Amino acid sequence: MSEFSKIDAWLEKNLDASIKELSTLVAQPSISAQNLGLKECAELVASMLRKRGFDAEVMPSEGAPVVMAERKGKVDKTLLFYNHYDVQPAEPLELWETPPFEPSLREGKLYGRGVSDDKGHIVSRLHALDALLAVDNELPCNIKFIIEGEEETASVHLHDFIKNNMDRLKADACIWEFGGVDHRGVPMQFLGLRGICYVELSVTALGTDVHSGLGGSILPNAAWRLIWALNSLKGPDERIRIPGFYDGIVPPSARDRELMDALPDVAEEYKTRYGAKEFIKGLKGGTDLKMEEVFTPTCTVCGLTSGYQGPGSKTVQPAFASAKVDFRLVPGQNPEDILKKLRVHLDAEGFKDVKIDYLGGEPAARTDPDDPFIKLVVDMAEEVYEMPMEIVPMIGGSGPSYPFVHDLKLPVATAGLGHPDTRAHAPNENILVSLYLKHAMHMARVLKEFAK
Amino acid sequence: MSEFSKIDAWLEKNLDASIKELSTLVAQPSISAQNLGLKECAELVASMLRKRGFDAEVMPSEGAPVVMAERKGKVDKTLLFYNHYDVQPAEPLELWETPPFEPSLREGKLYGRGVSDDKGHIVSRLHALDALLAVDNELPCNIKFIIEGEEETASVHLHDFIKNNMDRLKADACIWEFGGVDHRGVPMQFLGLRGICYVELSVTALGTDVHSGLGGSILPNAAWRLIWALNSLKGPDERIRIPGFYDGIVPPSARDRELMDALPDVAEEYKTRYGAKEFIKGLKGGTDLKMEEVFTPTCTVCGLTSGYQGPGSKTVQPAFASAKVDFRLVPGQNPEDILKKLRVHLDAEGFKDVKIDYLGGEPAARTDPDDPFIKLVVDMAEEVYEMPMEIVPMIGGSGPSYPFVHDLKLPVATAGLGHPDTRAHAPNENILVSLYLKHAMHMARVLKEFAK
Repeated sequence: MSEFSKIDAWLEKNLDASIKELSTLVAQPSISAQNLGLKECAELVASMLRKRGFDAEVMPSEGAPVVMAERKGKVDKTLLFYNHYDVQPAEPLELWETPPFEPSLREGKLYGRGVSDDKGHIVSRLHALDALLAVDNELPCNIKFIIEGEEETASVHLHDFIKNNMDRLKADACIWEFGGVDHRGVPMQFLGLRGICYVELSVTALGTDVHSGLGGSILPNAAWRLIWALNSLKGPDERIRIPGFYDGIVPPSARDRELMDALPDVAEEYKTRYGAKEFIKGLKGGTDLKMEEVFTPTCTVCGLTSGYQGPGSKTVQPAFASAKVDFRLVPGQNPEDILKKLRVHLDAEGFKDVKIDYLGGEPAARTDPDDPFIKLVVDMAEEVYEMPMEIVPMIGGSGPSYPFVHDLKLPVATAGLGHPDTRAHAPNENILVSLYLKHAMHMARVLKEFAK
Repeated sequence: MSEFSKIDAWLEKNLDASIKELSTLVAQPSISAQNLGLKECAELVASMLRKRGFDAEVMPSEGAPVVMAERKGKVDKTLLFYNHYDVQPAEPLELWETPPFEPSLREGKLYGRGVSDDKGHIVSRLHALDALLAVDNELPCNIKFIIEGEEETASVHLHDFIKNNMDRLKADACIWEFGGVDHRGVPMQFLGLRGICYVELSVTALGTDVHSGLGGSILPNAAWRLIWALNSLKGPDERIRIPGFYDGIVPPSARDRELMDALPDVAEEYKTRYGAKEFIKGLKGGTDLKMEEVFTPTCTVCGLTSGYQGPGSKTVQPAFASAKVDFRLVPGQNPEDILKKLRVHLDAEGFKDVKIDYLGGEPAARTDPDDPFIKLVVDMAEEVYEMPMEIVPMIGGSGPSYPFVHDLKLPVATAGLGHPDTRAHAPNENILVSLYLKHAMHMARVLKEFAK
């Protein structure tokens, strides 16, 4: 019989009550993009922590308030949870089967905006703490929470907030806000996030749109200026042409490749899921595809806007054009540095007229796959999921992990209740209650083991 | 005393009634882009012509019905009027000071959608015919009208309609649908229109948008594919790179340059009106600018659409991207030929994935500046406008003049009631009643002189 039998039994017995508490939290809208309900939600989260004996505070930041909380435990080691209480907008509302802010339990799933990303993680972790307190009358170690309200809008003020609160955030390890199982049901350990530098490039060539019969031969065209500027950034060979863009990059190690080798091939799954006939750069699949996916920096046009975009034809020469461009960065690159190099490059290529608006960024950050804390989190999964976690050395997405890894100097492990159809950011976001329970069981084990 | 005193007096005396008739015609919406009121408007126009003793017919075409009408006159020479009864959409409605389809007379101007483009021209010309019939009891020559209902949607079926009705359209000369005075009050004679080839280029790279953190390094990006394809069409040197694009172009003559020389410089006016800091190709102004404006073919991006276009950032890799592209053609070029060369070029450059939708086109057409009919129309303006018309050998815009010049083999003269603030295609479209009267006076003179 496992040392966790009592804890597991408590978690199961009190599962309905925990799901009910999660439903209350989900029912409080907290949409950072729309500045809706943030303060109310932060207060609600703080009150939930205080109920567990945490010293919790709703702290102002340059943006949304941040919930900071801590409670001492038996051993003087500290585990920090990073979570966020804000959610994505619920639109398009008509695609929801039940209203996004009226959580609904159907066939083993709880539906609602934020149930997975990220409120389910918050409450499932509290559920684990409740079990430890109920069974052991104390927490195994010190626990801290930092729960921000701007994750869905790029966490633009989090880095400064952390730098201003280094002492209060001192810890020995960090559990990240998300995680989950893949399509095979295997729990995944994601050890790094790429960085990002997101810009809007725009050109105002004229004071007003002009009839294309007049302007075409003699007046500057904003759309053409933008196309040429973008083309100067990257050509069909996919090589990014900004001088110095690739400088200082830390290449992946043999260990990274070994970890990628151990992961299943994604080629056919990606082709089917995204309707792609083929990959770029001549990639076919296997480890090369997996390595390329995350260990190369990118320059992605996320959006283009100019002139007439309706049906049929309109003979207009656009005064204005803009593009959203996202650079994904790998270790060794820095968004502010990329921004500077982009400006220098555009100027040198004759595109002084292209304006750059910096919409946010953060550097990449990784945790060593062989860090003992990672091994602990990976191993503790085995009893719950009937298999250890698979280690993914890096993923292509970005998140505010840099200050945790490089300012607070913490090993950061991921763990969570996500599943492939969790629909975060989409209508009918949902969690499997069974995985919610498993995440709590996993967390209880991680905390006890961490305190040993 | 002019031989036109009686006619002028009649036109002035009956001006209010004519403006009232125009108001009735304007009150009948006829928006070709929205297929709204076209049949009703065609019938109304035919009934107005029948009231003048014309044999008028509303004829079906592959698109909107075409009004054809003729009436015999004293001399067996035939003048053909080309007009259109359709109008542009009235949107944005909130910018109209009075409702677009409730014509309103204020301070010497009549406001309403289509008062200038092109219903005012139709009724002003009928007013001239009324005066000739009232004073002389007959028309000086045979008059024919062809009044189409698709001019605002690129007259896509007109060329075929004309080819199918060559006999009924036989004439000796043609008066075009538009014309007017420039900002100095000088009446202008526009002798040619550029051709056009309007296409939509689109790329579907994936079955669905993908998170840019995943797709950037490995999956094709529709926006990038489109940017590179467009860049292959024209670079910052403004030279169009499609092989054979410039083949067969008929260059402007010394006479064209002489006519352009005689026209006022437009450089400062254009810079002010369109908010341009400078012209492209190093153009500064003078005759070079005027020549370049109309005698070079263009490749203009009229619109760009792809991915996320809202405020702030969204990290998405677009599955789809499209561009509206308009090529203005000069004499010697043909839209179908350009379309073929465009396809060959894109294929050769590796852009087989770029789809081309042809949204319409027509070749350029010009009338000889020294044609006797042009001289007649130019000279007859002098008494009305206190100056002869200034001859513009070609303008940058396009219109369906090719079949009139090259199938019907007619000299085509422009004349009309437009003024610089007439706001065709825009809210608060208007005409000056004084110029409406002058156009009728000019037309009466042209008809009588033409019959001599």
